[in-house]
Amino acid sequence: MSELPAAPPPPDVPGDIPAAEFRAAMHRVADIVADYLEHVGAYPVLPRIAPGEVRRALPAAPPEEPEPLEAILADYRRLIEPNVTHWNHPGFLAYFAITGSGPGILGETLAAGLNVNAMLWRTGPAATELEEVVCDWLRQLLSLPAGFVGHINDTASVSSFLALAAARHRLPGLAIRERGMAGRRDLPPLVVYASEQAHSSIDKAVMALGIGHANLRKVETDDEYRMGAASLEAAIAADRAAGRLPAAVVATAGTTSTTSVDPLRAVAGICRREGIWLHVDAAYAGSAAICPEFRALFDGIGEADSIVVNPHKWLFTPVDCSVLFVRDPGAFREAFAHVPEYLRTAETGVTNLMDYGIQMGRRFRALKLWMVMRAFGAEGLRARIRAHCALAREFAAWVEREPGFALSAPVPFSTVCFRAVGAAGPAEQDAMNERLLSAINAAGSVFLSHTTLRGRYVLRLAIGNLRTGREHLERAWALIRSLASELGRTADA
Amino acid sequence: MSELPAAPPPPDVPGDIPAAEFRAAMHRVADIVADYLEHVGAYPVLPRIAPGEVRRALPAAPPEEPEPLEAILADYRRLIEPNVTHWNHPGFLAYFAITGSGPGILGETLAAGLNVNAMLWRTGPAATELEEVVCDWLRQLLSLPAGFVGHINDTASVSSFLALAAARHRLPGLAIRERGMAGRRDLPPLVVYASEQAHSSIDKAVMALGIGHANLRKVETDDEYRMGAASLEAAIAADRAAGRLPAAVVATAGTTSTTSVDPLRAVAGICRREGIWLHVDAAYAGSAAICPEFRALFDGIGEADSIVVNPHKWLFTPVDCSVLFVRDPGAFREAFAHVPEYLRTAETGVTNLMDYGIQMGRRFRALKLWMVMRAFGAEGLRARIRAHCALAREFAAWVEREPGFALSAPVPFSTVCFRAVGAAGPAEQDAMNERLLSAINAAGSVFLSHTTLRGRYVLRLAIGNLRTGREHLERAWALIRSLASELGRTADA
Repeated sequence: MSELPAAPPPPDVPGDIPAAEFRAAMHRVADIVADYLEHVGAYPVLPRIAPGEVRRALPAAPPEEPEPLEAILADYRRLIEPNVTHWNHPGFLAYFAITGSGPGILGETLAAGLNVNAMLWRTGPAATELEEVVCDWLRQLLSLPAGFVGHINDTASVSSFLALAAARHRLPGLAIRERGMAGRRDLPPLVVYASEQAHSSIDKAVMALGIGHANLRKVETDDEYRMGAASLEAAIAADRAAGRLPAAVVATAGTTSTTSVDPLRAVAGICRREGIWLHVDAAYAGSAAICPEFRALFDGIGEADSIVVNPHKWLFTPVDCSVLFVRDPGAFREAFAHVPEYLRTAETGVTNLMDYGIQMGRRFRALKLWMVMRAFGAEGLRARIRAHCALAREFAAWVEREPGFALSAPVPFSTVCFRAVGAAGPAEQDAMNERLLSAINAAGSVFLSHTTLRGRYVLRLAIGNLRTGREHLERAWALIRSLASELGRTADA
Repeated sequence: MSELPAAPPPPDVPGDIPAAEFRAAMHRVADIVADYLEHVGAYPVLPRIAPGEVRRALPAAPPEEPEPLEAILADYRRLIEPNVTHWNHPGFLAYFAITGSGPGILGETLAAGLNVNAMLWRTGPAATELEEVVCDWLRQLLSLPAGFVGHINDTASVSSFLALAAARHRLPGLAIRERGMAGRRDLPPLVVYASEQAHSSIDKAVMALGIGHANLRKVETDDEYRMGAASLEAAIAADRAAGRLPAAVVATAGTTSTTSVDPLRAVAGICRREGIWLHVDAAYAGSAAICPEFRALFDGIGEADSIVVNPHKWLFTPVDCSVLFVRDPGAFREAFAHVPEYLRTAETGVTNLMDYGIQMGRRFRALKLWMVMRAFGAEGLRARIRAHCALAREFAAWVEREPGFALSAPVPFSTVCFRAVGAAGPAEQDAMNERLLSAINAAGSVFLSHTTLRGRYVLRLAIGNLRTGREHLERAWALIRSLASELGRTADA
């Protein structure tokens, strides 16, 4: 099989670091990573450093001469590992908690060794086809209709951006890809719709696309923070009456603040009637649809034109891995495909991943997702998502039972919004909760984040790390109650 | 220090795979990666499989039950590793050859273990500050003026896209971020300029930005494929006369086909006079500027508003890692920063990487670049780039000396464009070279790609892998000559 011996390069061409050194260092790194994951809970979740401390500890200029790997790894242990925020910590309960699981780390390591850029089928046949297969596995687990085709992007921000670009491209007779949007008399303002709870990536997408932030309609939500279908319909009608052109609706299945789910079936009906592209941002909560008991919440999702689900959020896959499903891959590719001569290949009928977006380079992200799906199995993934949701419901019940605390939103998945309600008026309560959050996070054992709901400051506790067990939540809750009571006494004093 | 013991989660909350299993599998993967890199040269560069073979070998549905890691790793060895295109192969000489070097793989592995999302300083202090530091190290090595601030994106496609979005944002009085571009009477068509040799990512960026492909002026190049400054100036004047608005110029330092360098000083002068944003795409060749002897080619680059250099192309860093340097980071952030309440943090004066683009999620890519820069040292990096360029010049000399072959473009860096010129007319020569490339790549020991130059089919040999030594090029050249002579005989027969 060997056509070129794996001989070391001649001395006048300096190659990679020596093979034996690399192998030894890989084993050292295997232990560093395994040690880290076994002991990550011993760190404060947020490192206790001030801005600039790490920078000042690093040389201002790069080294001229090579440094030994042991010295670099020692610096890593001393300076980097303790000073990151520990996303794999069982007490990480902020934003959306995530897990770089063991199988995912193994996959990422193998991918780094291969260093495949699967921009074309030809430059990564197995990488391209594995991506097709694992995206279809995920489609099946989510119970999305056959016909939806997935591909992997780095982030949901990019997935949603691409979906909106494709929606714009599909507007009939406008040829925006070719002619652009500026200086055209035949082009009315375009409008994109999303709920006022939609993620900031949608704001950024409409800005970058040149649609304009002012043309993003933030549709009001009901008392459970779900997009009002009637409000959406009215907004579309008002824009049409004013001569503007509705280009896309973004429905969110699992909003960032409260994980509310927009009424997908009703929104999809409006989009169908109006002929508007429906993109569903299910970056976080979409993963829950692998459990049949959660699917009612996603009713209607199969009517969408595009759907983003991030395995790096709640399917235990290391960042980055965002799957964008599209109903019509051919039409989607038309928005982006542009093949210069130097990238033309002879293969026909193959997927060239670079045709699915603006990024030519394609890292082999399917490998880690494949390993996660196999190592846990569908039942294992479901069990973990169910456990997270059960823990969240349990935590929510503790909050509900506790005088001086109140839930701030329903808890459909694994994220709980709540706040202390001891202080006098709403503004005092806001200040109290902000102080409470600072005190909680300063303690080191947990990290929570916040949001505002109807103008009120609210704490968010998000469960998504595989290391988070009931005992961590019990201790978190004890800490929160004790700090709240302490702050209450200080306020009274 | 421990505030939470690293106890295993209770049995009712399924956690990650068991720690001991993970550690053992990490060591197994350490050996798989080390073995691969020691023996990658034994594979044919391009796997000998037909489209669909890998897909058909994989189960059509995901497994319900967990599978043992050994079984997954065995499938990886059997089905994935042999069937990727081997970018780390010493005979990979296509596109731009790259290296996922040992230190880079170590860094990527550690980053996967940490699983940090450095969207905010608070969510990754060391990751954020290391990114600031290594980008500044790279700035110093490239001899870019102080004041340029770098950040890391996934790909040059995204870096250039962001640069052009920032250029558009800076157009005075137009408020495109807020108001968009469609349906405005006050907005003329915007125009972006690049040479006809510019990378396809620029085409994709102007499409996605809504500027329109028709408004990308492909400026003609001179006989060495460099943008004609006079042609650029004339194109700008013609557009202004027609009421269009020049928004940005993209100069390329190291074009994809021939690695030609646009006259940066002259182009920068035009941009300064005209008040137009200058973006320099130095994704591949920019790395050569770490060697003082190459800097003359980059004269004027310090006058740019933004510059992209990809360490994953020619600084031996695994994909993905693209550094975008901007002259005015404050103005750049204004194009993108949008902070919802749930991402507000108390820290002031810190870098929040999510403000530097459309992607909120930020993988810890600085770690691998830091390890590469330290393990090789600046002198080590320079020595490797010099060796690649010397090998390319040597190969070019062989081509020049060989009857029946001709160089198709100058060789400023490590890429050689050439073709067989034995056949009768240019069209016959094109067909001959296309057949020759197929035969070369079918042999398995090397992988070359092609381009067209002034309509003629040309072979490209790109040196960028650390494993590529003179002996591989000698064998590649022997193969090319022998196949060409064989094809010539067949044609004569």
